[in-house]
Amino acid sequence: MQTFNFDKPINRFDTDSVRWNKYNRDVIPLWVADMDFASPPCIIRALKDRMNHEIFGYTHAPEGLKEDIVDYLASHYNWHIESDWIVFVPSLVSSLYSLAINVTHPKAHILTLQPVYHHILNAAKNSGRDYTEIPLSQDNQRLALNSESILSYAKSNSEMLFFCNPHNPGGTVYKFDEISEIARICEQKDLIICSDEIHCGMVYPGKQHIPIASVSEDAANRTITLMSINKTFNIPGTGLAWLVCKNIALRQKASKDFGTIIPDPQIFSYIATKAALKNGEPWRQAMMEYLITNYELLSSAITKMPRLHLYTMEASFLAWISCQDLKEDNPSQLFLQNGVAMQPGSMFHQPDHVRLNIATPKVYLEEALKRMRKAVSSKDKLLNY
Amino acid sequence: MQTFNFDKPINRFDTDSVRWNKYNRDVIPLWVADMDFASPPCIIRALKDRMNHEIFGYTHAPEGLKEDIVDYLASHYNWHIESDWIVFVPSLVSSLYSLAINVTHPKAHILTLQPVYHHILNAAKNSGRDYTEIPLSQDNQRLALNSESILSYAKSNSEMLFFCNPHNPGGTVYKFDEISEIARICEQKDLIICSDEIHCGMVYPGKQHIPIASVSEDAANRTITLMSINKTFNIPGTGLAWLVCKNIALRQKASKDFGTIIPDPQIFSYIATKAALKNGEPWRQAMMEYLITNYELLSSAITKMPRLHLYTMEASFLAWISCQDLKEDNPSQLFLQNGVAMQPGSMFHQPDHVRLNIATPKVYLEEALKRMRKAVSSKDKLLNY
Repeated sequence: MQTFNFDKPINRFDTDSVRWNKYNRDVIPLWVADMDFASPPCIIRALKDRMNHEIFGYTHAPEGLKEDIVDYLASHYNWHIESDWIVFVPSLVSSLYSLAINVTHPKAHILTLQPVYHHILNAAKNSGRDYTEIPLSQDNQRLALNSESILSYAKSNSEMLFFCNPHNPGGTVYKFDEISEIARICEQKDLIICSDEIHCGMVYPGKQHIPIASVSEDAANRTITLMSINKTFNIPGTGLAWLVCKNIALRQKASKDFGTIIPDPQIFSYIATKAALKNGEPWRQAMMEYLITNYELLSSAITKMPRLHLYTMEASFLAWISCQDLKEDNPSQLFLQNGVAMQPGSMFHQPDHVRLNIATPKVYLEEALKRMRKAVSSKDKLLNY
Repeated sequence: MQTFNFDKPINRFDTDSVRWNKYNRDVIPLWVADMDFASPPCIIRALKDRMNHEIFGYTHAPEGLKEDIVDYLASHYNWHIESDWIVFVPSLVSSLYSLAINVTHPKAHILTLQPVYHHILNAAKNSGRDYTEIPLSQDNQRLALNSESILSYAKSNSEMLFFCNPHNPGGTVYKFDEISEIARICEQKDLIICSDEIHCGMVYPGKQHIPIASVSEDAANRTITLMSINKTFNIPGTGLAWLVCKNIALRQKASKDFGTIIPDPQIFSYIATKAALKNGEPWRQAMMEYLITNYELLSSAITKMPRLHLYTMEASFLAWISCQDLKEDNPSQLFLQNGVAMQPGSMFHQPDHVRLNIATPKVYLEEALKRMRKAVSSKDKLLNY
């Protein structure tokens, strides 16, 4: 049995880290969605092995990588696809933007969500299409897209729904009934589904990720699923992504700019992804155990803080926290002044919220929670005065 | 004094090499433009150092990398730019396609060249703009764009010229007078210049690379220069590129899709490029010495082959060979049947030519030349019969 040490802080200063370089060194930066954990040894080993060859020429996807993905999706999500439904892309984010343009007509209307990952919001906006953000519903602090609301916001020219499962921010994992109903409404309104499922490798115990394309034959035919193991195995800096699309005509539209405007993936991204799919499972399970104890720590700390409300997390490391009761225009600024950097809710179009990244050693998380507590306590006193 | 071994063949089978995997194993593949040489030790060392950190999160360009480029361009090409004229991109090819769309109007006409790198041809075509390929002139087997011909092919709605220096295929290095005259005509016709200068690190002794943006204030303001060290240091599989553009408005148009449709560069591409710029010069000089002896080998062999004509190479490893006198519809097919794979001239819109990659150990090049000789001799006999 391998053991992995997630407790040990690794100094990320002087590594050109987007996350650690943005603020003063005394700020704990829990914003951008990468982890402070070392990648699995199997990835490091595979990268070094490839490096020892010393020639890094033009490289195609490794033999058998698509088949590895097919097997992985079947065994982890009971999703049975064929390897030619897979198209590799250098970045999931880049695909959000290109799909919004390439699979809809210029006069189309796009449905997106709120709150949702800012690149999904921006992809809709950037496309030049008309678009509407569907507010997610909440039930007992659980955020989810209510299928009925698709009906209320769809227009006659709506052509696509951006969907996100597990949801970012917050980590909601959709249940079979919910997702089937969303797929059914998309069939009724004839919507293409662009489903960002990048967090599906980090689902908490007792929950199960269900790809929306897997719920019915119709859903399979109208869905482009975007996947990657970059988040789960912490390799966004050398990342790879892929889309899965059964429908050939849709897949061709979706692939329009690949290899031209959108570059081919790079060599080390293939190597890292292949290694993780083949040999990363023990690390993933250990990482998930650690993540869940971080969530418990967060959850119990937030419960004790006045005026903050944590949404139920069912996956991922991106906590979504309502600061509505703090009466702050920009609550992330209050936390930053107290030494914790978070993603402002305004990026997800809910300015009175913050997104907190808990994929960090406990020593950082505990200190961050202490600082947050201090920040909200002083504000609470002021408000109660 | 460091020594490097370019003679030693490195097995590239089973490395997902685009170049080595395409044909049967007994074919010598001298087509796609990467080298069969190991990358410089300074790059391998830098990559391994970074790998030892074990966290590959979201990464921005290394501190000082733009300044390193500024210094490099000043010392190698006497080109004095400012660091904020530089924009990093993940791939030069991807930028060719995006620039054709983003810096011209939909109704614009684009001027491109013939023969030229197929992605330049395709970028013009893919843009949906009207375009014309200007045939290069040849003077004593030296291919070059004659500035007068720009005038004959320009239309009233021409907005951009794709330029390539050193030229691919063939490796012409433009002289100051030639390039100044091209820049002058572009000023006269008010054309944006998109100049692919990716081979500028491999200029032969006695020649000097002159960036077209460096010849005048006006040229600097109308040019987007595309550069990368991927070719020179053989790292296209983990490559980085950048554009240089003094004109802010043009630079903003050129950057339109970066960070959205076009992903940010990846971590190891920054690391490799930084290492090469800082410490790669001894390797580059040794590689150039080797390349020149390969060119001499090629040149003397082709001279002895009936019906083949080699264009004068002044840079790069991409030889351009006229097979017109062979009377073959697809001469690359004849060579392939004899065990040498080359890039068919049809890709560059000159089907009676072939492009041969000489960045390979002599043991391969010599055998390839033997096979080519056999191929043309038998064909020559047939034609003389």
